[in-house]
Amino acid sequence: MSNEVRSLNEECGVFGIWGHPDAARVTYFGLHSLQHRGQEGAGIVSNDSGKLMSTRGLGLLSEVFKDERQLNQLTGQSAIGHVRYATAGTSSVDNIQPFLFNFYDGDFALAHNGNLTNAKSLRKELEIDGAIFHSNSDTEILMHLIRRSQKESLCERMKEALDTVKGGFAYLMLTEESMVAALDPNGFRPLSIGQMVNGAYVVASETCALEVVGAKFIQDVNPGEIITINDEGLTVERFTEDTQHAICSMEYIYFARPDSNIAGVNVHSARKNMGRILSQEAGIEADMVVGVPNSSLSAASGYAEESGIPYEMGLVKNQYVARTFIQPTQELREQGVRMKLSAVRGVVEGKRVIMVDDSIVRGTTSRRIVNLLKEAGAKEVHVRIASPPLRYPCFYGIDIQTRKELIAANHSIEEIREMIGADSLSFLSEDGLIDAIGLDFDAPYSGLCMAYFNGDYPTPLYDYEAHYQATLKEKTSFI
Amino acid sequence: MSNEVRSLNEECGVFGIWGHPDAARVTYFGLHSLQHRGQEGAGIVSNDSGKLMSTRGLGLLSEVFKDERQLNQLTGQSAIGHVRYATAGTSSVDNIQPFLFNFYDGDFALAHNGNLTNAKSLRKELEIDGAIFHSNSDTEILMHLIRRSQKESLCERMKEALDTVKGGFAYLMLTEESMVAALDPNGFRPLSIGQMVNGAYVVASETCALEVVGAKFIQDVNPGEIITINDEGLTVERFTEDTQHAICSMEYIYFARPDSNIAGVNVHSARKNMGRILSQEAGIEADMVVGVPNSSLSAASGYAEESGIPYEMGLVKNQYVARTFIQPTQELREQGVRMKLSAVRGVVEGKRVIMVDDSIVRGTTSRRIVNLLKEAGAKEVHVRIASPPLRYPCFYGIDIQTRKELIAANHSIEEIREMIGADSLSFLSEDGLIDAIGLDFDAPYSGLCMAYFNGDYPTPLYDYEAHYQATLKEKTSFI
Amino acid sequence: MSNEVRSLNEECGVFGIWGHPDAARVTYFGLHSLQHRGQEGAGIVSNDSGKLMSTRGLGLLSEVFKDERQLNQLTGQSAIGHVRYATAGTSSVDNIQPFLFNFYDGDFALAHNGNLTNAKSLRKELEIDGAIFHSNSDTEILMHLIRRSQKESLCERMKEALDTVKGGFAYLMLTEESMVAALDPNGFRPLSIGQMVNGAYVVASETCALEVVGAKFIQDVNPGEIITINDEGLTVERFTEDTQHAICSMEYIYFARPDSNIAGVNVHSARKNMGRILSQEAGIEADMVVGVPNSSLSAASGYAEESGIPYEMGLVKNQYVARTFIQPTQELREQGVRMKLSAVRGVVEGKRVIMVDDSIVRGTTSRRIVNLLKEAGAKEVHVRIASPPLRYPCFYGIDIQTRKELIAANHSIEEIREMIGADSLSFLSEDGLIDAIGLDFDAPYSGLCMAYFNGDYPTPLYDYEAHYQATLKEKTSFI
Amino acid sequence: MSNEVRSLNEECGVFGIWGHPDAARVTYFGLHSLQHRGQEGAGIVSNDSGKLMSTRGLGLLSEVFKDERQLNQLTGQSAIGHVRYATAGTSSVDNIQPFLFNFYDGDFALAHNGNLTNAKSLRKELEIDGAIFHSNSDTEILMHLIRRSQKESLCERMKEALDTVKGGFAYLMLTEESMVAALDPNGFRPLSIGQMVNGAYVVASETCALEVVGAKFIQDVNPGEIITINDEGLTVERFTEDTQHAICSMEYIYFARPDSNIAGVNVHSARKNMGRILSQEAGIEADMVVGVPNSSLSAASGYAEESGIPYEMGLVKNQYVARTFIQPTQELREQGVRMKLSAVRGVVEGKRVIMVDDSIVRGTTSRRIVNLLKEAGAKEVHVRIASPPLRYPCFYGIDIQTRKELIAANHSIEEIREMIGADSLSFLSEDGLIDAIGLDFDAPYSGLCMAYFNGDYPTPLYDYEAHYQATLKEKTSFI
Repeated sequence: MSNEVRSLNEECGVFGIWGHPDAARVTYFGLHSLQHRGQEGAGIVSNDSGKLMSTRGLGLLSEVFKDERQLNQLTGQSAIGHVRYATAGTSSVDNIQPFLFNFYDGDFALAHNGNLTNAKSLRKELEIDGAIFHSNSDTEILMHLIRRSQKESLCERMKEALDTVKGGFAYLMLTEESMVAALDPNGFRPLSIGQMVNGAYVVASETCALEVVGAKFIQDVNPGEIITINDEGLTVERFTEDTQHAICSMEYIYFARPDSNIAGVNVHSARKNMGRILSQEAGIEADMVVGVPNSSLSAASGYAEESGIPYEMGLVKNQYVARTFIQPTQELREQGVRMKLSAVRGVVEGKRVIMVDDSIVRGTTSRRIVNLLKEAGAKEVHVRIASPPLRYPCFYGIDIQTRKELIAANHSIEEIREMIGADSLSFLSEDGLIDAIGLDFDAPYSGLCMAYFNGDYPTPLYDYEAHYQATLKEKTSFI
Repeated sequence: MSNEVRSLNEECGVFGIWGHPDAARVTYFGLHSLQHRGQEGAGIVSNDSGKLMSTRGLGLLSEVFKDERQLNQLTGQSAIGHVRYATAGTSSVDNIQPFLFNFYDGDFALAHNGNLTNAKSLRKELEIDGAIFHSNSDTEILMHLIRRSQKESLCERMKEALDTVKGGFAYLMLTEESMVAALDPNGFRPLSIGQMVNGAYVVASETCALEVVGAKFIQDVNPGEIITINDEGLTVERFTEDTQHAICSMEYIYFARPDSNIAGVNVHSARKNMGRILSQEAGIEADMVVGVPNSSLSAASGYAEESGIPYEMGLVKNQYVARTFIQPTQELREQGVRMKLSAVRGVVEGKRVIMVDDSIVRGTTSRRIVNLLKEAGAKEVHVRIASPPLRYPCFYGIDIQTRKELIAANHSIEEIREMIGADSLSFLSEDGLIDAIGLDFDAPYSGLCMAYFNGDYPTPLYDYEAHYQATLKEKTSFI
Repeated sequence: MSNEVRSLNEECGVFGIWGHPDAARVTYFGLHSLQHRGQEGAGIVSNDSGKLMSTRGLGLLSEVFKDERQLNQLTGQSAIGHVRYATAGTSSVDNIQPFLFNFYDGDFALAHNGNLTNAKSLRKELEIDGAIFHSNSDTEILMHLIRRSQKESLCERMKEALDTVKGGFAYLMLTEESMVAALDPNGFRPLSIGQMVNGAYVVASETCALEVVGAKFIQDVNPGEIITINDEGLTVERFTEDTQHAICSMEYIYFARPDSNIAGVNVHSARKNMGRILSQEAGIEADMVVGVPNSSLSAASGYAEESGIPYEMGLVKNQYVARTFIQPTQELREQGVRMKLSAVRGVVEGKRVIMVDDSIVRGTTSRRIVNLLKEAGAKEVHVRIASPPLRYPCFYGIDIQTRKELIAANHSIEEIREMIGADSLSFLSEDGLIDAIGLDFDAPYSGLCMAYFNGDYPTPLYDYEAHYQATLKEKTSFI
Repeated sequence: MSNEVRSLNEECGVFGIWGHPDAARVTYFGLHSLQHRGQEGAGIVSNDSGKLMSTRGLGLLSEVFKDERQLNQLTGQSAIGHVRYATAGTSSVDNIQPFLFNFYDGDFALAHNGNLTNAKSLRKELEIDGAIFHSNSDTEILMHLIRRSQKESLCERMKEALDTVKGGFAYLMLTEESMVAALDPNGFRPLSIGQMVNGAYVVASETCALEVVGAKFIQDVNPGEIITINDEGLTVERFTEDTQHAICSMEYIYFARPDSNIAGVNVHSARKNMGRILSQEAGIEADMVVGVPNSSLSAASGYAEESGIPYEMGLVKNQYVARTFIQPTQELREQGVRMKLSAVRGVVEGKRVIMVDDSIVRGTTSRRIVNLLKEAGAKEVHVRIASPPLRYPCFYGIDIQTRKELIAANHSIEEIREMIGADSLSFLSEDGLIDAIGLDFDAPYSGLCMAYFNGDYPTPLYDYEAHYQATLKEKTSFI
């Protein structure tokens, strides 16, 4: 599914490095490979002997760092960076991370990927106690908790704070003395550590960023771990023992880059397996398999290989960004859509097409792509989705928080098929998804979070509980 | 081969429409689908009852048209547009097309895709006779020739002018009364005509633009034709009878979008055929076929299908544009390269890889990609190029005008293999290319221009003859 | 009268230098001191051994030259520059000067201040003969005439061209071998020559620019002269003998900077004299004299000195530019007006004020200022205008070309007084103006052009004759 | 003294309005008239029924509000705004005011003009207690104190906080229910209240802003007052009884606009009086009086009137902003200087000039202007300064905090005269200054702060005490 047309969005990506003479520049490279995790803003904080310096801005990394001098000013041997996703309404440079705090006893930078489930109540408690917040982001809460903790050492204060916040989170912190990474007790978000030839440690949301900067993968940050990196090396501690793997399955299905490994599993390979198992579960006779670019190409090639039906480029995505002005007429709106994705008449005309996509959210995109293929002359369009139907909201870092936006929450598969105009429609089974990814953790669903598919949330929902109960009663307002 | 890293560039793309209430907006859509043909500048001229209005600028279409109001100001029922490629040195807004001229007897707009081979001598003659030029572009020459012609009608003046210029050209012209398209006597560049449901005529460099705006393909502009479109309809005339098809084969190999048809042949299908025939001509045992994204994916899937070796996503292209700042160290330079393209360790590690690319120009890119794959653990890398070796410059609209830039001009295939570090290297044969495209014109090479491969230029070289003789003696200064 | 609120605009300013290692930079300084002559665009062309390089853009000089590198790129020992005024509608970078032409036989740059009266007919003749124009500006015409002249030497060709164009013009031209300055046969626009300590020659629209760059005034360019400056020095020739001084009197009244001398007369001193004579001609009893900032301060201080009435700062101009958004209510519109100019209640309250302004065009500004003073408590406001009533359009370089815009064209002084709400109103007499400036040329009006006041145009009006006859019949659509 | 070339800078200007349907727009007008008080950043917060909305940015007001839509989005019937001065080094949008805080119990906006003398120790105390600061500005401190106060009502919490901070401050605060203005116990900074015809209350740093928005002056905010404005009207309370007038005398001398009244005294009139008394104290025979534009024109005209020596425009300030690129040679540097200010040769040549300026800080500017006049031919230049010598730093809101920058701190008047190259030099006496302003408060120096001249600070210096003792020993590093 093309990035621009869907409504499923990751919250963020983080990258950090300790011990490299060009720390900010390496962070720039690393963040660029994580750009798919957030396009609304980006920032880098570097640490030059305790003086922390920051550049942040709205937009893509290449828009924030327009001038090499911006990078050159971020001197120092360690740095952390962040790319952010945010809904348009609240996008303000105030919310762009990493946040940088100047205290009388030293500077402190903080970057966060995820979503806290008890943010609202914590914030109110803190405000009543005199705290002042400067952003809408959850991220500041941790800083207040750390500063208000009465524990002796910074590390103990961090542990106390991390044990207070709930939900899905991956934190990266930077001070004069160290860089600290921490992951929530379920490990919803990926966070990996690598090392460069010169010994520098690197922390990143995805392993693709390690490859890009030439770092070798060392270990993942595990649920409940707080890892401190300083000039002495790397120390692993835990802020809680109450942990259980529940890796976000949407990372494998859609979010992560195909060249990343999560918990040791290559994402492209997992997707190809999803396509293969989907072919076994929902085979059909056809002339060609077509993947929706770019995220579904792996699944589609797995489907094609398993089925023996040739893989064809029946859809082409325009590699250039299109401004989507408001179009005055329906005809122009349709042309606007085709600016991003077009069907290849010379390939699909008169053919039976199996269209493989990674997921269906609202269904509007699927309907449009089926329509494009039919307009280009496809005789039949059989839609095959390489994941189970999305039926429940996520509260751990993906911005679908109501069932109204999910077509499968309120409609049968046959109803959806009719709505999107496909000749047939099948989804991958939950078991098929679990098998395709093939994790082997001693935890429900082999260590995956499957809540979007079955409502089985691995944690209490805290501040979101009431909202969740309400959304269970909502009807999808579809298409 | 990824767009950013190669040195082979198309000159331009043109689009025009006659008879639509939102002519400029449709032109905007059409140009967006031709953006791959030129990223240095873009412009649109609309015609509102004889008043021609223009917006032009440097950069991508989305950078030139930042604000919807710019489009709204370009009122009128007909418009022509242009996207331009140009070398950085001479990029100036003065050279961005379409050119708009205000004469006492009416406005005139002109857009051009191609390269004239007698531009220099024509320009000097005209200047001696008092003409003043305002750009470095060849395009103005035609305007001067038309204005100085003594023929009676505008159409006759155009014919005389078109018969005076030599080389490869596709022109699109707009006046109050008509839109005119013309193609050189060899038809080096593609130019197609379509019609929308409301009857509006559309002219575009590639048929993908017709699809995007919902127009139905009607006919190609043929070599030597001048086609006038006005409120009465479409009239085909010829400015010369001395024509012979010699369609640029690089359009099929690399330039055109896979969803375009050129002379009735789908580009994706032609590329898949190139891969298939390449597999027959140069098969080898291996674990996977990997295409260089994005242009080589069709050829790679053809190779995989024909050989039965699985197609894998072993290389990932970052979809986000990277600013390439000057990197101070070799280590950082290598990391900068990986920002654009990275090898997927989880896929290629320990494997024998067939890497399929569309062409080799200097060889630097190939060497780098082979290196990426080997660093990611590939055991063997066998490079298969889905076109014959590039050995001769082009003077008809592609900006390789010296043999120094072409590794194959001065090195044997075995030498190139060693230079790029591949375990084996093969190119598609000339006959294989001709068969894969499968044109059936009564002309040498079935109607293709094969000059880059064999130096067999379909026309005299005029002002470039001396330059060509000189470059034949040059040595490649490689890698 | 404040610059932003009036409708009387100069066409341009030019500056050139020959023989300085930092020619472009000195030109930048010179142009900055001429910025009051044009704020719509600016450009500089430098000459580095025959290679002419240009930077041009819309807006103020400081907006066009944002980055020092732009200046550094304009290498070479000679340069010419231009600041341009233009009405908003037609402002396009295509019209920004100096124009730079690249001919096979050398580069040529051209800058122009003034207005041609036979531009339209010359342009049509040239187009019929095959010439192509690229801008709306009159300036290109001279280039075409020069290139089409059959004379032997460049200088002879220039003379022939200069003798063909009619109206008010000051040209500055630059080629590899020389810089050339030329002035129309009436010398409507000022143009002066200076020399720097290192011997470099400087040409500028006003002598203030000579001062700014540290050049010593040498001589004015006289009507009908063409002055060539090259490495040999300075050569004065004439392109016509039919000359007669008619210096634009508005230069003294309003346009020129007070620190400039025109024809040897200091502008501030001339204005102070206008105030003095005005006081003699139209004295009245009052408590204070207040000048309208900034252009009327000299005249007001002359009036105060002559009358013995104290000069006070009763009006303050905000030195910061205000964006004039559309204001939804009348109350807000009035507040918007006060953003630019405000009356000082603490000074004028309860006082009888003599308000001195340089001129009245439409009358709207005068009415508003009178109103401001009354609102701030002034008991009486006596308006004294330090020039005669403007009654006729100008065709030599000021953009008032219709009588509709001139309140005095159709109304008696008593009517105007009532319209602007003043307690009394007087204008300087024509003789008073001539005396105040004190030129001593053997020509009507001592060498001044007084046409705006009395319709006595020093030349035939050519293409404007019909337009002039029509405007004589128009009624002012006032206030 | 021209604004660009001096090193004496005001900290800020504030404006607020309660009860107007276009509150943000009126605030925009008001701030524009206060632009001279701060050019580094600007912001407006509006209050639409308790929802506070903010737009802030670096640069001039016209740069921050480029688009009318920005104003239109700031809906609501009350608003406060701020223009900020800051040294280049720390300029960041994080420091631009008004600050807007979103608390669970309502939004709060805060703007500040002045400087706290106990900021550093308060901030450390607060941080030790868990507070987090987000800017370098003193302003946040008040917010923390208010939020941490245990008092019952918001007004009581504000009073407690205001009584805790020390130094010079004028605060403007906005909540859903009210707009609050408060002034330090010495009233260093001006702050006035007016009312519009529709009943809306307006608060502004200077009365010129009241005039611009058409509001009538009602009363000044007095030392130690906290004034609450809400829908019920205006309530005056005090947060301390320990007050004593010490109005910043530099406001009269240099900072404030001539059309403002401070404590009932018109600034232009005060300056004219300074010139008059200076003429009495330091008369000399000469041909003309020349004021340094723009700030010294009032004083110069007072000097001229009193002495009977004619006032002339011997110096011209270029009204257009000049970019000051680094100039490679001394010659170019001097030309760069003349871009901003030039001497009028036609006026001063051969003449004895009395040059009146408002103050001397480092002396570099005075030296340069004397030099300009002499180069333009002035026979003698007698410098007359319309204020006493600046010898001591300011800690209440003017950014001169070290004596090293003050030439008069370490040099006799004769030494300064020699250094600046004047033929004679005199300063206004302290008594002369006090008489010229003519305040009549029952306080030392009639209610003025004269600390810059005599080191007599009206308050303890708190955190600055050590710094002050150190600077007393410093030597001026001059010119």
